[in-house]
Amino acid sequence: LEASPASAPPSAAPTRGARRRARTRQRLTDAARALIAQKGVAALRISEITEGADVALGSFYNHFESKEELVEEVVSDAIQALSEAMVARMASIEDPAEAVSFATRHFVLLATDNPELASLLVNLDQADAQFERAVLPFALQALDRGIAAGRFNVAEPRVALTGIVGGTLAVMRAILDGRSRGDADVLHAEAVLRAVGLALDEAHGIARRPLPALDTPSSQPRAAGLVA
Amino acid sequence: LEASPASAPPSAAPTRGARRRARTRQRLTDAARALIAQKGVAALRISEITEGADVALGSFYNHFESKEELVEEVVSDAIQALSEAMVARMASIEDPAEAVSFATRHFVLLATDNPELASLLVNLDQADAQFERAVLPFALQALDRGIAAGRFNVAEPRVALTGIVGGTLAVMRAILDGRSRGDADVLHAEAVLRAVGLALDEAHGIARRPLPALDTPSSQPRAAGLVA
Repeated sequence: LEASPASAPPSAAPTRGARRRARTRQRLTDAARALIAQKGVAALRISEITEGADVALGSFYNHFESKEELVEEVVSDAIQALSEAMVARMASIEDPAEAVSFATRHFVLLATDNPELASLLVNLDQADAQFERAVLPFALQALDRGIAAGRFNVAEPRVALTGIVGGTLAVMRAILDGRSRGDADVLHAEAVLRAVGLALDEAHGIARRPLPALDTPSSQPRAAGLVA
Repeated sequence: LEASPASAPPSAAPTRGARRRARTRQRLTDAARALIAQKGVAALRISEITEGADVALGSFYNHFESKEELVEEVVSDAIQALSEAMVARMASIEDPAEAVSFATRHFVLLATDNPELASLLVNLDQADAQFERAVLPFALQALDRGIAAGRFNVAEPRVALTGIVGGTLAVMRAILDGRSRGDADVLHAEAVLRAVGLALDEAHGIARRPLPALDTPSSQPRAAGLVA
């Protein structure tokens, strides 16, 4: 019973129709992202998105149920790109504690540096869960590195991560609402370092080190409009 | 220039009409709370609420713009009542670290013990900010007590509180979604105690002490339906 090499492609391979569909969907997402970066979500109109994507107005609903669903996808993509940029940068930071401080501070600072993206992010449906999924791979890796090195003391990385992510989103919301202060990134990173087990003086020092820039690599063009 | 004692009441005193209006609003809120406790929010109908409150169906919209607005008020009231019960109980806990652990664990456990209220709470519009406002008085008091006693090390109580509240809501959401585990209350309280400056062994011990019950006092009848 030998399988013929000329048999039909495995069902996982997309058909030409599916590929075309995916390209159209991508064009709509790209157009929406550019429009959001330009003038915000509130002023976004479906007709402008389809015009920008060069897609017939009526076919919008073949791809998305609503403008809101498309916006969620744009934001999810942006979080994903941001997380990937974070992973790339964190890999070059030797001390896991510095890596955790770096990521925490950059997410908090997003509320100051890119309030449009930050406010889309914190207002996502189930923001905690989506954000946690996006940062999970690199965040767990950083926690595990710190635990293995005896630098962190964390019994259950998943529970710790949930608390850290939820706290970080709340600090971002407080900044966006004008309820928080300029150095909240440092203060929150310090609290996070303590929570994973660092001594007070170490947490104090590491949270206050000069913050390396986070460059969104040019290999992430899909997020360029939102993650500047 | 002596004010006459028989002059009109100060404008702050409600008129008879305003009092009647407040009573009707209260009857609607009470009826909604009882129905929510009985069968949840999804099945809640405005006609049942007005029937339960003995109010004409049409007058509902004189008091609330939508069913959702009424539900938000019911939940805000419940958080308020829960917070007041927390204050009363925390005042009798001498060690501020134990008081913080007590409050943190009871909020996390709400997700297990009263999932209906917990899920209304975490899904409130701007849940962080509302929750933070409700817990602010007693939470800041507990933090300040701990700082004054040299037990906590916190530079900015407001930033610390934002992170703690956001983290606690996220852990509650994770439990409600089935993403977390049974002892998350202990693990999260331990992280919070570390974040406010306790040493690892102390945080470990205090977070694992037997948890005193939180009795919603009978003086809080407005929340009795939801805060059991």
